[in-house]
Amino acid sequence: MRSLRHVTSINDLTNPEVEHVFALASQYLKRLGDKDIPYRIAKSTKAGQGRLLATLFYEPSTRTRLSFESAMLRLGGKTISSADPNASSAAKGESLADSVRMLSNYADAIVVRHKRDGAARLAAEYAHVPIINGGDGAHEHPTQTLGDLFTLRRENATLKNLNVAVAGDLKHGRTIHSLVYALARFGSRIVLMPAPGMGLPEHVRWRLRHEFPGTVVSEADQDKPIDVLYVTRFQAERAANEVSTYPRIDLKFLDDKKFSRARVMHPLPRVNELHIDVDRDARATYFQQAAYAVPVRMALLSTVLGLSEKKFAHYAGGFRKVKEELVEPPAGHGIACANPNCIVHDEIDGKYSANKFYALPSEPPRLRCFYCETDIADVRGAARTRGAAS
Amino acid sequence: MRSLRHVTSINDLTNPEVEHVFALASQYLKRLGDKDIPYRIAKSTKAGQGRLLATLFYEPSTRTRLSFESAMLRLGGKTISSADPNASSAAKGESLADSVRMLSNYADAIVVRHKRDGAARLAAEYAHVPIINGGDGAHEHPTQTLGDLFTLRRENATLKNLNVAVAGDLKHGRTIHSLVYALARFGSRIVLMPAPGMGLPEHVRWRLRHEFPGTVVSEADQDKPIDVLYVTRFQAERAANEVSTYPRIDLKFLDDKKFSRARVMHPLPRVNELHIDVDRDARATYFQQAAYAVPVRMALLSTVLGLSEKKFAHYAGGFRKVKEELVEPPAGHGIACANPNCIVHDEIDGKYSANKFYALPSEPPRLRCFYCETDIADVRGAARTRGAAS
Amino acid sequence: MRSLRHVTSINDLTNPEVEHVFALASQYLKRLGDKDIPYRIAKSTKAGQGRLLATLFYEPSTRTRLSFESAMLRLGGKTISSADPNASSAAKGESLADSVRMLSNYADAIVVRHKRDGAARLAAEYAHVPIINGGDGAHEHPTQTLGDLFTLRRENATLKNLNVAVAGDLKHGRTIHSLVYALARFGSRIVLMPAPGMGLPEHVRWRLRHEFPGTVVSEADQDKPIDVLYVTRFQAERAANEVSTYPRIDLKFLDDKKFSRARVMHPLPRVNELHIDVDRDARATYFQQAAYAVPVRMALLSTVLGLSEKKFAHYAGGFRKVKEELVEPPAGHGIACANPNCIVHDEIDGKYSANKFYALPSEPPRLRCFYCETDIADVRGAARTRGAAS
Repeated sequence: MRSLRHVTSINDLTNPEVEHVFALASQYLKRLGDKDIPYRIAKSTKAGQGRLLATLFYEPSTRTRLSFESAMLRLGGKTISSADPNASSAAKGESLADSVRMLSNYADAIVVRHKRDGAARLAAEYAHVPIINGGDGAHEHPTQTLGDLFTLRRENATLKNLNVAVAGDLKHGRTIHSLVYALARFGSRIVLMPAPGMGLPEHVRWRLRHEFPGTVVSEADQDKPIDVLYVTRFQAERAANEVSTYPRIDLKFLDDKKFSRARVMHPLPRVNELHIDVDRDARATYFQQAAYAVPVRMALLSTVLGLSEKKFAHYAGGFRKVKEELVEPPAGHGIACANPNCIVHDEIDGKYSANKFYALPSEPPRLRCFYCETDIADVRGAARTRGAAS
Repeated sequence: MRSLRHVTSINDLTNPEVEHVFALASQYLKRLGDKDIPYRIAKSTKAGQGRLLATLFYEPSTRTRLSFESAMLRLGGKTISSADPNASSAAKGESLADSVRMLSNYADAIVVRHKRDGAARLAAEYAHVPIINGGDGAHEHPTQTLGDLFTLRRENATLKNLNVAVAGDLKHGRTIHSLVYALARFGSRIVLMPAPGMGLPEHVRWRLRHEFPGTVVSEADQDKPIDVLYVTRFQAERAANEVSTYPRIDLKFLDDKKFSRARVMHPLPRVNELHIDVDRDARATYFQQAAYAVPVRMALLSTVLGLSEKKFAHYAGGFRKVKEELVEPPAGHGIACANPNCIVHDEIDGKYSANKFYALPSEPPRLRCFYCETDIADVRGAARTRGAAS
Repeated sequence: MRSLRHVTSINDLTNPEVEHVFALASQYLKRLGDKDIPYRIAKSTKAGQGRLLATLFYEPSTRTRLSFESAMLRLGGKTISSADPNASSAAKGESLADSVRMLSNYADAIVVRHKRDGAARLAAEYAHVPIINGGDGAHEHPTQTLGDLFTLRRENATLKNLNVAVAGDLKHGRTIHSLVYALARFGSRIVLMPAPGMGLPEHVRWRLRHEFPGTVVSEADQDKPIDVLYVTRFQAERAANEVSTYPRIDLKFLDDKKFSRARVMHPLPRVNELHIDVDRDARATYFQQAAYAVPVRMALLSTVLGLSEKKFAHYAGGFRKVKEELVEPPAGHGIACANPNCIVHDEIDGKYSANKFYALPSEPPRLRCFYCETDIADVRGAARTRGAAS
């Protein structure tokens, strides 16, 4: 069996691996950058000649798909794309597992976007080429985070000791979930500014609290100046209800002394939460952020495909602060992931497609779904949800 | 006028031409194959540099379109793609003939998928580059069959004297129709295992019976072991009714001694007819089958585009067991194809788009539609269907 | 700030620039043309290696998108494509301005198609790569016109003193609007043959009358033979009502002595207005016209991207017959474009997205919208439409 490196979560990469991606991205900007626009790639290499990237997108996208395609083409490679589930065999009822097995034969790496949490990790189990998570439900969007961190590093010169306020839909925002882990790992502080009822999910907060105590604060408790204000869109497609009150960042909001030097970031697209008046303000950093997606994705693809001299080491669990034990209860019985949007609930042939957990060293016992990384805090309670055999 | 070779039916290729495609595909696997996965292409050539393939798909597809695109890119060429009829000028009412004439100027070969039987052959009449049939209604899917045969040849070392059971929707399954002709031509036997009411169409059975007597048997009459079990999906998009009973191949079904050495094949995507438990069984061959699509399509494209040393001869009718005479009654009057899904019934400017038949040497007289290859068994009866002038 | 050349209107190019594009297109046909088909490109160059073209299409298209992609690939470049607004971030509510800013970082030029008049010019304001208008509402389709003129030049050897009849939907047909300006500029006469109620818009007629007096005649006043009959489809997607009477060009229509030597052109796709019987007539020129799209778009891309030795000069207003003064009233107040389909009426953050006019040297005062080029004939009347502050 060959060793593949998948990027399904930001935690699949160690800190030195993230640093390697950034170093390579900086080289690309230096060698291939636009002479007028410092954050833009304008030329191509031939390093990736003959290599193919597939994009397999089950949800709408422009930015992620096109920036990955641009990155692959700038590397000298080529792309094939399944961007519209209605025009693909998904319309005929094909499972994600089968689609990924097929595409593994047609391309050298696959970027997957899916509405289900944990879909990327399921895809990785069936692929024989590297899987890159292009956003899976409300779980993670690790390559967005790589671009975000790279932007912070370029614009702030450091990732350490920053006060990063995250505003908006912290509940469904997959970019937020990847980001907060990464900020904690690189030594920054996270200041929570959720929209009402849209705080970080319990399992994300639990994990940050146990692995990085003290890194998360609520805005009320924060009196230091904010270095970065990271705004996100309301994820209407993932939320059960409409929202009545949502943060709206405009120049008036930014008048607050706390934000006087705060860089404003946003993964885009924006709808109403970030006013266009901010575009001309020196603190606006979101267009650079969008541009940095290309060199960062070039660097990631280059490393994953083995185009650069340095390759990622054989998978050794990525970043792990806590030692977890993998347990695999039999499918269809007993314990199941408590997250209703987890990919494991997609049934194939009358079976749940997968069922696997990390047992966390905690009291009371806690299981973390291997796929979507949602925790079952009370294992006995969860076990009942599917009427275990006994 | 230049001579073009179109592949609209498996019978457009002679047996030596099929063998040439296989020889070339084997070379590609040897030169460009994945060192860990024997059926996967992992590298590219430059033979097709500067050449363009267009995919013109009026029906959903992932496998066919992406494997063709992958094949063209692995050859060093490039692709343009019209994959969504709703985002194309088909949405404005453009005819297939006009679309093909246009694309002939933009690319060097065109793969067409269409819901109408016979669409590929109509397209070929208007193209000035080679047309490859990527599936036309319930008619044929010849490049799927090339991949299927190649799989059989690689895995069974021969195409002769195999007992190949075809199961499921034999009525609407275009892959089946291409396959049974090819199996008969290469000397294998076809064992019918249709879902209830989904047997081979009458004209397909008639042709096999007249051209290859004795090659088709029903499962009940077959006591020899099955070498290959070829399963197909219910073609819901082509059937008038829901289906209540459909074969379901699982490990229990395969327990039957008759299947003890049968390779299980499936053109994919599957829905419920082939259980995932079979995936881990040594007899499962469908994932290799999907992978072989790439080298086979590379070989076909290479030959059609004239990239390899050997080119297909000028078209001399492909494989023909029986001498047929082409007759062309005036459009809009008299005899018309009896198949309501035939492309000829698409009206353009108040005319049926085409009308042309092979007169078969049989008694009673029998006409075979030039486009969809459905027969009119009783010519006088059919003639009445459009109220002939007299 | 770097100097970019956008092509949002045919009038963005001077006559010598148009001639340069044609000279280059002719060279491509000579060097890379099909030996059997004089109007078809069959080979590729490497001039554009490493360069990327993005297509950003908010409306269905096959011809424009695929011929641009073909042109870019034949130049040796590559493409990324957002062809389906439902599968893009437009589905999440992203503004055109934001989408263009993003794509500017992923590609070296962008072709935009949009349902709003003036969208291309708005896009150009936000892009930092060249924008090419692939059709914006009923405004213009300048690259179609470049192909049309090139066809005329190749087939008629001149663009001067031709009598060009334009038939059909002259009101909504954006190809017509670009075409009539170009014909006037190159010294041809325009003979109007509108469908009932579908004459040229008032502002187009006004402009032709003032800048090129005497170049437009109605068919009734025209007794000279027609050199070119340019037919267009009814633009159902842009019209408020169904149409009952529409020109239908067939062989009988062309029997008229006036058309005995008229080349028949059509931008395609056609629906019913141009009968297929004409296809075999020697006067039919529309398939050549479709084919010439490729060398012409290659030449345009080559010039815009700076691949050819000659580049377009820094933007100096393109073709301008009349000196206009740019005025910019404050957004949200006072004067606004009177065209309800103009892009400026897309509100972003409670503001109209833009508001800018050319003051024309005329009496009574007349303002031309900078974006969609619709005129406000009575400025005071228009000012009232949005309830000016005073």
